[in-house]
Amino acid sequence: MSDTPYQALEDRFRRMAILGECETVLHWDAAVIMPASAAGARGDQLAEMRVLSHAMLTDPAVGDLLQEAPSEALDPWQQANLREMRRDYLHAAAVSPDLVAAQSRACSACEAIWRDAKAKSDFAAVKPALEEILRLTREVAAVKAEALGLTPYDALMDQFEPAARQADVDPILEDYAAFLPDFLGAVLEKQARTPAPLIPQGPFLADAQKRLVRGLLEQVGFPFESGRMDESAHPFSTGYPGDNRITITVKEDDPAMAVMAALHECGHALYEANLPSVWARQPVGAARGMAVHESQSLIVEMQACRSPEFIGWLAPQMTAALGDDPAFEPENLKRLYNRVEPDFIRVEADEVTYPAHVILRYRLEKALLSGDLSVADLPQAWDDGLEGLLGIRPPTMAQGCMQDIHWFDGAFGYFPTYTLGAMTAAQLMASAQAAHPEILTDLAQGRFTLLLDWLRRTVHSHASSLSTADLVTQATGRPLDPAAFRTHLTRRYLERD
Amino acid sequence: MSDTPYQALEDRFRRMAILGECETVLHWDAAVIMPASAAGARGDQLAEMRVLSHAMLTDPAVGDLLQEAPSEALDPWQQANLREMRRDYLHAAAVSPDLVAAQSRACSACEAIWRDAKAKSDFAAVKPALEEILRLTREVAAVKAEALGLTPYDALMDQFEPAARQADVDPILEDYAAFLPDFLGAVLEKQARTPAPLIPQGPFLADAQKRLVRGLLEQVGFPFESGRMDESAHPFSTGYPGDNRITITVKEDDPAMAVMAALHECGHALYEANLPSVWARQPVGAARGMAVHESQSLIVEMQACRSPEFIGWLAPQMTAALGDDPAFEPENLKRLYNRVEPDFIRVEADEVTYPAHVILRYRLEKALLSGDLSVADLPQAWDDGLEGLLGIRPPTMAQGCMQDIHWFDGAFGYFPTYTLGAMTAAQLMASAQAAHPEILTDLAQGRFTLLLDWLRRTVHSHASSLSTADLVTQATGRPLDPAAFRTHLTRRYLERD
Repeated sequence: MSDTPYQALEDRFRRMAILGECETVLHWDAAVIMPASAAGARGDQLAEMRVLSHAMLTDPAVGDLLQEAPSEALDPWQQANLREMRRDYLHAAAVSPDLVAAQSRACSACEAIWRDAKAKSDFAAVKPALEEILRLTREVAAVKAEALGLTPYDALMDQFEPAARQADVDPILEDYAAFLPDFLGAVLEKQARTPAPLIPQGPFLADAQKRLVRGLLEQVGFPFESGRMDESAHPFSTGYPGDNRITITVKEDDPAMAVMAALHECGHALYEANLPSVWARQPVGAARGMAVHESQSLIVEMQACRSPEFIGWLAPQMTAALGDDPAFEPENLKRLYNRVEPDFIRVEADEVTYPAHVILRYRLEKALLSGDLSVADLPQAWDDGLEGLLGIRPPTMAQGCMQDIHWFDGAFGYFPTYTLGAMTAAQLMASAQAAHPEILTDLAQGRFTLLLDWLRRTVHSHASSLSTADLVTQATGRPLDPAAFRTHLTRRYLERD
Repeated sequence: MSDTPYQALEDRFRRMAILGECETVLHWDAAVIMPASAAGARGDQLAEMRVLSHAMLTDPAVGDLLQEAPSEALDPWQQANLREMRRDYLHAAAVSPDLVAAQSRACSACEAIWRDAKAKSDFAAVKPALEEILRLTREVAAVKAEALGLTPYDALMDQFEPAARQADVDPILEDYAAFLPDFLGAVLEKQARTPAPLIPQGPFLADAQKRLVRGLLEQVGFPFESGRMDESAHPFSTGYPGDNRITITVKEDDPAMAVMAALHECGHALYEANLPSVWARQPVGAARGMAVHESQSLIVEMQACRSPEFIGWLAPQMTAALGDDPAFEPENLKRLYNRVEPDFIRVEADEVTYPAHVILRYRLEKALLSGDLSVADLPQAWDDGLEGLLGIRPPTMAQGCMQDIHWFDGAFGYFPTYTLGAMTAAQLMASAQAAHPEILTDLAQGRFTLLLDWLRRTVHSHASSLSTADLVTQATGRPLDPAAFRTHLTRRYLERD
């Protein structure tokens, strides 16, 4: 059927992408539709899909084809595609099927224990399972490091954000750790001089909130003509060309949360929806990595939608949809959506303190993997680390080292992408505004077209054809530089009213 | 991993069943959730799942394991499981991957042409595609006949209803063809002496209809604790243990249709939900075949829910849910739900004339496959055949030989299962009532427990451990006999008021 090794590779990766689409539907269904009684069966289904994908990817024939595919006869996108295929293959083939299975079982077991133990802040209960995960993660990191020619921690980061390296990430995050204390003090001091924001007084009907959110997603540009919005326990977006799905989480007492969470997911969804359709189902046509993905959600949520300009437009929309509430007055809504407050919980953090949560986890996971920190010492190290960064100590382990699912589900090397994404978003937004100074006045009228056109051109359309570093440099004229994020924060939290 | 050839087979068939569950979710999603823009992608996904399943089943290792598995060391259910595995393997392995692919492509192409051509009654447009399907179906029938030691037509029927044979089906259906003319005349004559039923005068709110149907499904016993009800263009039921899904189709002017269609699907759903969980994901644990499946939908819909006893209970439920309408008076509703009227369209036929539609298709498809009838002569043969059976001629081909999707999607050998199912339902109901004379008085109070307990014991719990013939004989004391259906019809349409 296939004429050349490269074409044979495209065929095979297309089949794997199709299996990935099936997984997407199964995951979405599990979160939105499925009766809880089917959880066991769904776990088996997803495991079977992963086994089949892994077998298709690690087939020795793929290694042979990758050797044979003559990159010189390919155009630049095909060459990039081959590079991404090779990356996928090296990651997968490095790990034996037994190790994959052992890791998968250990993660499922630990995650289940963690769900119960977290409710009781019972770290001792989950400690053995976490130690087992750590042991297997070290093993995976070692074999991937060997295959990829990387350090073990870089091999783990590379799974989530290709080419992210500790040597680059360390100075970026430590720069922020050094910047934060004085900056946070100044922000809190300034904030103390203004009244605390009023909180919307619910209940607000779920249907009214859903209509509001749907209207906002339409306003930003979510492709409802080939997509849908549903509800789930945690908001997320997923899909593939022709089938874009976003979910929202509505609480009757907190419409402000529902709105921003949906706009965040919309940023992810627009990235996926705008990837070049001609490269759909090929590795080069996929989103670049988790840091770039997060930059797209955060440029919509944090840079655009929490800007005073957009909030000025949003405030009357909320009043119209949900009824009069003094919390929806523009000045109050700006204070509410830009409130800075050190807290124990990462997912509830504002954009100033959020990186502190990431830095804490980044420092700790490196130490856990290297063996410098034992699992037994993690709770103490966590609490000390948070106190050093934000000056607060979690009262319970559920609010401390047990709060996030990531480690208990085996995701080491993931956390830094959140802050790399936030910094990338700030740098992209500065360049977008430099190219189109009208972006802010557009946002003040609820218009996203200019910003999104710029993102489509500079980010979305490149998919994985460029490295993240080249993507950022092409789009902004320089490599990722934490200065843009600092400048953004200084302007928003110290210089503006 | 596996100790014995039999256990290795169980492992492999479990994986195939899990893939089948994934397909189930993808099909359900396509009918209920998916944006139309994803139809192409979904087609690719389902095709990929079928390719993977087919490869897993036809792997030569399966043939070897089937040779090695020593049936004498197995218990009766394991032996039956091995027999069903062998059947699945022989069907699949008989057909080359190229022929499978060619047939799949021909069916997709023909079905797409048929959708357009049917709207215009343009048989000439679809004729070449149907000829191609017929050519490939003959090829499939020939290789399966060879592998299974059957005639070609029996090999096709065997795909849908294992062990159904033309030698048995011919006399059963021809018996009905001989019975029908006089009987139908008598029914129509009797019916003419009573007033025509009033039709409910809508619109009836969709939400009210859905609440009514949901309540009725709960009443019959649909497992909502591990299932759900949604809407789709055509009602269907699907799922697997822990995840039972039923869909309904609501039209504002026809609540009577929505109710009976849902109860029909509920019969299918209860069969699936009551299969023995210990044999889930094994061939022996699956539903027996399409005739038995149809018997379970029809015993609920036709035997139980269209009985005068149940309709007497249902009538006030409809009034309570949908408001006063003289059509919901019990006597009118009985006439409405038991109206006999020769019509061109199979899916709208009453239970007296329905078998005539099946007999017509059964006669014609045998002639098409043997070559006794050419595709070019099909429209004429159809119209003549229907006139011979029911005394009416379709005014258009959309109401004639183009009305059903089956042949245009490659399903030859399927039609007889509808009437075998109707006859099986009648015979099962007679035995259930003989065992539990209170069943009818229970139905008059909306109670299904006795009937369903009897079905669970005599049908559902046996899954595929027995042949259909043994299942029917064990449950009713004798092989399938069209007399029970005739008796049922005579009693309902001639003897009762």
